[in-house]
Amino acid sequence: MKVKDVGEFGLIRVLANVIERERDSGLISWQRVVVGVGDDAAVWRGSAPVQLATTDSLIEGVHFALDIATWEELGWKALAVNLSDIAAMGGVPDYALVSLALPGDVEVESISDLYRGMVRLANQFGVAVVGGNISSADKVAITVTVMGSSASDAVLRRSGALPGERVAVTGYPGLSAAGLKVLRDKPDFAHEEYLLLRRAYLQPLPRVREGQTLLSSGVRTAIDISDGLMSDLSHICEASGVGAVVHEDWLPVHRVLRQRFPHDASGMVLAGGEDYELLFTASSEVIEKVRAAMDCPVTVIGEISGGEPGKVELVSASGRRMAWGHGGWEHFKSQL
Amino acid sequence: MKVKDVGEFGLIRVLANVIERERDSGLISWQRVVVGVGDDAAVWRGSAPVQLATTDSLIEGVHFALDIATWEELGWKALAVNLSDIAAMGGVPDYALVSLALPGDVEVESISDLYRGMVRLANQFGVAVVGGNISSADKVAITVTVMGSSASDAVLRRSGALPGERVAVTGYPGLSAAGLKVLRDKPDFAHEEYLLLRRAYLQPLPRVREGQTLLSSGVRTAIDISDGLMSDLSHICEASGVGAVVHEDWLPVHRVLRQRFPHDASGMVLAGGEDYELLFTASSEVIEKVRAAMDCPVTVIGEISGGEPGKVELVSASGRRMAWGHGGWEHFKSQL
Repeated sequence: MKVKDVGEFGLIRVLANVIERERDSGLISWQRVVVGVGDDAAVWRGSAPVQLATTDSLIEGVHFALDIATWEELGWKALAVNLSDIAAMGGVPDYALVSLALPGDVEVESISDLYRGMVRLANQFGVAVVGGNISSADKVAITVTVMGSSASDAVLRRSGALPGERVAVTGYPGLSAAGLKVLRDKPDFAHEEYLLLRRAYLQPLPRVREGQTLLSSGVRTAIDISDGLMSDLSHICEASGVGAVVHEDWLPVHRVLRQRFPHDASGMVLAGGEDYELLFTASSEVIEKVRAAMDCPVTVIGEISGGEPGKVELVSASGRRMAWGHGGWEHFKSQL
Repeated sequence: MKVKDVGEFGLIRVLANVIERERDSGLISWQRVVVGVGDDAAVWRGSAPVQLATTDSLIEGVHFALDIATWEELGWKALAVNLSDIAAMGGVPDYALVSLALPGDVEVESISDLYRGMVRLANQFGVAVVGGNISSADKVAITVTVMGSSASDAVLRRSGALPGERVAVTGYPGLSAAGLKVLRDKPDFAHEEYLLLRRAYLQPLPRVREGQTLLSSGVRTAIDISDGLMSDLSHICEASGVGAVVHEDWLPVHRVLRQRFPHDASGMVLAGGEDYELLFTASSEVIEKVRAAMDCPVTVIGEISGGEPGKVELVSASGRRMAWGHGGWEHFKSQL
């Protein structure tokens, strides 16, 4: 059955059922819902002192190709990239809205899968999917908005990095770029390697709890890596009016990257993008506190300098120091 | 200068400046902003007991054509349709996020105009535009999310209509459909007629204060007219498990519709859609209270019956009673 056979209102009923079936109704966010899918707006009770909101889109042919990703993975990722933005502020994600644009000849089952992927991730992070809207379009576009909360307005910002602070990163950036390469080139990798890379690209786990830990440990400056590590570091530097130096030797390079992509590994870590790891700056003491409080790897990769605002330099493995150009993802401009 | 010349980050800076220049910084919503455009998420202080959120998209070739609407009108309308959803719940709109998909060869000036139109409407309704995101795409798509608040969780819903209640509507539905027809056919109308109809289609004024008045007057069931009066009434009837009868003779037909479209006027009122008027049900006493409290016309057009759930009937001017089929706007299916 195709979307055009059931129509907009039929599809909304199908998706409301998917949410009803898949959701974890024990979540606090769900218990506070007054009006969910099917009315003019979603309504919930809640009075956190500080509110957060973010929106991001995945567009067919720009952010994804339907021959690479399953619909369930797309649903997961469309929510994940937004949860990651809330994580980068140290906030708690609570509610999500989904705006869907799609051609009429898409299978209803596919859109059910998309919602299933989204709600399964939402369940893991205490998020209730409470509404949205559906339009016809030539290509698939999934725009998710996530609303969250915070106990105080001392959130993680891009501004606030200070000369002398260390630059650190969670996890292993670069795995997502390697995942996209594997999905495109289909090399003969071991199954667990393939799965690791595929998941890094299509089912990233946003660092929500880690963002909250950064905040409670005394970190004040952070960003999530979407455009690419160096590019996102330059966003911090621009917003903070500082420069930064990154040491290639200090980068966390995952074993699989090192073994399978020996020549591209550094480039993938530095400029791959879509990692949804957290990049932050803090004193060495605060970073030690963060490391002690977190399960995931935390690696110091460089330091904030008083240099030219926005300028990010790389000290290569051979000791050469070079200014980093635009190598990350930017819409309308460069591409990896 | 085109969007592809300034790139994503350059465009974000331009748009942040438009917002800064155009916004009414005295609004309470702006005064509560902690982090606006340019970080990973928007942040504001606020602790209303009940939160509302809605999202809706305008897509090129589906919802609008660039040869008919100006960019400023598009910005206005993209926000207006969302404010209307908050109005239909009786809520107070507070914050908006904008997700923009556009081709790289669009002029930067056009997108500035789009934002100008949006912020000018936002100023009128106390709304702060606090963030969003921008992606490249083949066609323009504008997805706006509006977050609002309410003092109590007794909001206006689609469900709750009771047999014996009257059905009433604000303003003059049908003017928007006439506006689209005028923009397409370019008939030789007087300038003030042309402007009235153009504005009805491209710059609707959402009934935000009127929605709040409905709620405070004791109304419990309402919807905003986007798909078409009869179609949206059937949404109320489905959600409430009731039927409804509408009398063609009772419809509010604007003078310009009656004079300029003598044969199509009723059809435009009943099925035109995109009116963003409020359609509601209540007792005659409550409707009298509403009428006394409102500046805009309020017209009783029919009544809720205990008939087949979801069924809406029309009593024509000649006295014939007929079941109403699907005549409103539905994505993937019927078109006007």
